[in-house]
Amino acid sequence: MKEQPLAALKSWVQISKNADFTIYNLPFGVFKNKRLSPRIGIAIGDKIVDLSVLHEHGFLSEINLPENIFLRDNLNDFIALGKPITKKVRDTVQKLLLDENPDLKDHQARGKVMVNRKEATMLMPVKIGDYTDFYSSKEHATNVGAMFRDPENALLPNWKHLPVGYHGRTSSIVISGTEIYRPKGQFKDPDMEKPSFGPSRRLDFELEMAFIVGKPTKMGESVNIDAAEQYIFGMVLFNDWSARDIQAWEYVPLGPFLGKSFASSISPWVVTMDALEPFRTASPEPEEELLPYLQCKKDFGYDINLEVYIQPEKGKDNLVCRSNFKYMYWNIAQQLAHQTVNGCNIQIGDLYASGTISGPAEDSYGSMLELAWKGTKPLRLDDGSERKFIEDGDTVSIKGHAEKNGVRVGFGEVTGKILPAK
Amino acid sequence: MKEQPLAALKSWVQISKNADFTIYNLPFGVFKNKRLSPRIGIAIGDKIVDLSVLHEHGFLSEINLPENIFLRDNLNDFIALGKPITKKVRDTVQKLLLDENPDLKDHQARGKVMVNRKEATMLMPVKIGDYTDFYSSKEHATNVGAMFRDPENALLPNWKHLPVGYHGRTSSIVISGTEIYRPKGQFKDPDMEKPSFGPSRRLDFELEMAFIVGKPTKMGESVNIDAAEQYIFGMVLFNDWSARDIQAWEYVPLGPFLGKSFASSISPWVVTMDALEPFRTASPEPEEELLPYLQCKKDFGYDINLEVYIQPEKGKDNLVCRSNFKYMYWNIAQQLAHQTVNGCNIQIGDLYASGTISGPAEDSYGSMLELAWKGTKPLRLDDGSERKFIEDGDTVSIKGHAEKNGVRVGFGEVTGKILPAK
Repeated sequence: MKEQPLAALKSWVQISKNADFTIYNLPFGVFKNKRLSPRIGIAIGDKIVDLSVLHEHGFLSEINLPENIFLRDNLNDFIALGKPITKKVRDTVQKLLLDENPDLKDHQARGKVMVNRKEATMLMPVKIGDYTDFYSSKEHATNVGAMFRDPENALLPNWKHLPVGYHGRTSSIVISGTEIYRPKGQFKDPDMEKPSFGPSRRLDFELEMAFIVGKPTKMGESVNIDAAEQYIFGMVLFNDWSARDIQAWEYVPLGPFLGKSFASSISPWVVTMDALEPFRTASPEPEEELLPYLQCKKDFGYDINLEVYIQPEKGKDNLVCRSNFKYMYWNIAQQLAHQTVNGCNIQIGDLYASGTISGPAEDSYGSMLELAWKGTKPLRLDDGSERKFIEDGDTVSIKGHAEKNGVRVGFGEVTGKILPAK
Repeated sequence: MKEQPLAALKSWVQISKNADFTIYNLPFGVFKNKRLSPRIGIAIGDKIVDLSVLHEHGFLSEINLPENIFLRDNLNDFIALGKPITKKVRDTVQKLLLDENPDLKDHQARGKVMVNRKEATMLMPVKIGDYTDFYSSKEHATNVGAMFRDPENALLPNWKHLPVGYHGRTSSIVISGTEIYRPKGQFKDPDMEKPSFGPSRRLDFELEMAFIVGKPTKMGESVNIDAAEQYIFGMVLFNDWSARDIQAWEYVPLGPFLGKSFASSISPWVVTMDALEPFRTASPEPEEELLPYLQCKKDFGYDINLEVYIQPEKGKDNLVCRSNFKYMYWNIAQQLAHQTVNGCNIQIGDLYASGTISGPAEDSYGSMLELAWKGTKPLRLDDGSERKFIEDGDTVSIKGHAEKNGVRVGFGEVTGKILPAK
């Protein structure tokens, strides 16, 4: 792999140390504010480049773009232009933001192009057609299998042969910051004679990442694993909220349903695969020989540091988990090849989530279920309170960033506060 | 229940005996033909009432309708107008089609309003946001449980307490008539040491019906079972194509995935709940006391006769199954109440499928898996060939109709031919 130059690029936009949205990142998102209708922007430092205004002033005139392509309330039509075009837009914006380039820096429109991120409301970045949730962390699948099935045979026989996954609910995927009502439902603990009904008593987060599809296929077609990159536009952070008690009672034999469908949250800025390129790394070595359609020639792991914080209603943020996306046993190319191997068609905006990202260390587990080990090892928070699961009033935030040779590319955060059941 | 008058309504449109699309039915669909762009129509006999032309000529002027509401390629915006409006449209069309009413019968525009069904291409009736597949036939769940788990404990502990279901794949739901490629995938029979890859060797149909949501909810809200009717616009026939070998290997613990996501087929005409009202009937008595949110005050079963046909590439149609929607243990109101009890939001156009509709008799089983009992009792077709599962070149058709006191309301059919794997 080529070494990235040590933070060689400098922008005229002020970017604080440890900022996620550096000149190397430039993720796409959809925003509005009091003045502005929904539109597409690129984040840099504490600012957003309003691409519609940039386009209007001719800065993107060398790229073949439809009129008003940036005045949309989702990225789908923009992504549909294809990677050669979307890459050109990002490359052009990068050049315009360089300190040595006066074109935008000294232009009279600069004030209109650059919007304060603080004053912007972020919207769902894409219109999602279908959402799949994979189960691709070996540590997570092993932990869950050990807790609920058999510690000696924690992984099921299929697990090392295919990236296990299931269809998720699309309607309830919401943007970071959306408050989430605690779900109600049926549960039946082993000591109960009959199922009971009420607000979930075991509400959990799941630390995940998700990729967004950038190129569609037709029914009957499959994405070859060597071509998978062409179909992946970018990535976001993902919190797959889970009600463990509802899930435990309902999930045999057809899988998770109401224990998941009440809500999932995503981060607003889609970090492109181009921005993540310097952070590629090897995935764990396959422990079983894979069928050819799942054999990767290239590295598809990504070294992305992940953290989870819990903030009680009246307390401070508590760091409860440090994990990394590189722990994933099954990578995104394998997931996409598997998803489509049966001829299932994919669409622009589809979301494919990783499943809970747990690492080997006990503080790298990506859910309360694992961190507090089924309630047997409660976490103690700064304010002295204990947590086995998530309580009403708690805000859960997931953060993620990659860093190498002084270059930082971050995802910002996905956050959500739990409200009492309605 | 009020008795329906014995076929008292007569239309000036010629309607053959045993026609599905009678004056009592009047289902909504989306069609186009060589001349006409996609638009919304109502089926009657061998004709379609082009609602856009009807509207244009002022026949619907007493209803508050947006301009061009019928010139759409799906029903979603029309359904969103609400049941009072959509019912008025159907009622008005019914009056216009009555033999004693000369308004349309003798109007110069009649020729433009009435389109031949044979010359029309039907399109997907709705844009589907999310699709859930339930598992609500006790006979089907018992048969599958007996075959794959334990005949003594065929039903799992949760089955009689909640309508088990899972999220399905939306992108691959296609309109009747669409040809389906045999899916490829992994499977591992009990006698195999390692999983193998190839075209599915156990391709199956599933006889199902599905309802379409007509009114949305917000996240955190639940649909009360007594109000469920307000949220259900109508029903269609549904074939949930299934690859049994792929499904068997993948489905533990997260449920069916690639064994289902390659394709599902739906019938093009959405039969309204108003049209189905005379055919309401009791559902099987619950065998366990239900939690209050699943307790129905009204009957929500529907007496709808269902048939499945298999036509080999060069043979005739073979009737292989006769079932009825009234066998369903869990009804559509219970399904919707359950789907939303956790606060999961629903959207107009959502599709909720019943799961395989098997009856008590061996020839009423709604899948090849059950009809040929896991391949142990192959079906013999007219042409002398045998079927354990569906073969390349086979066309599977599901038909459905309700009939009472001389009044018939039918669904037409959902049909699909299997092509060899790509």
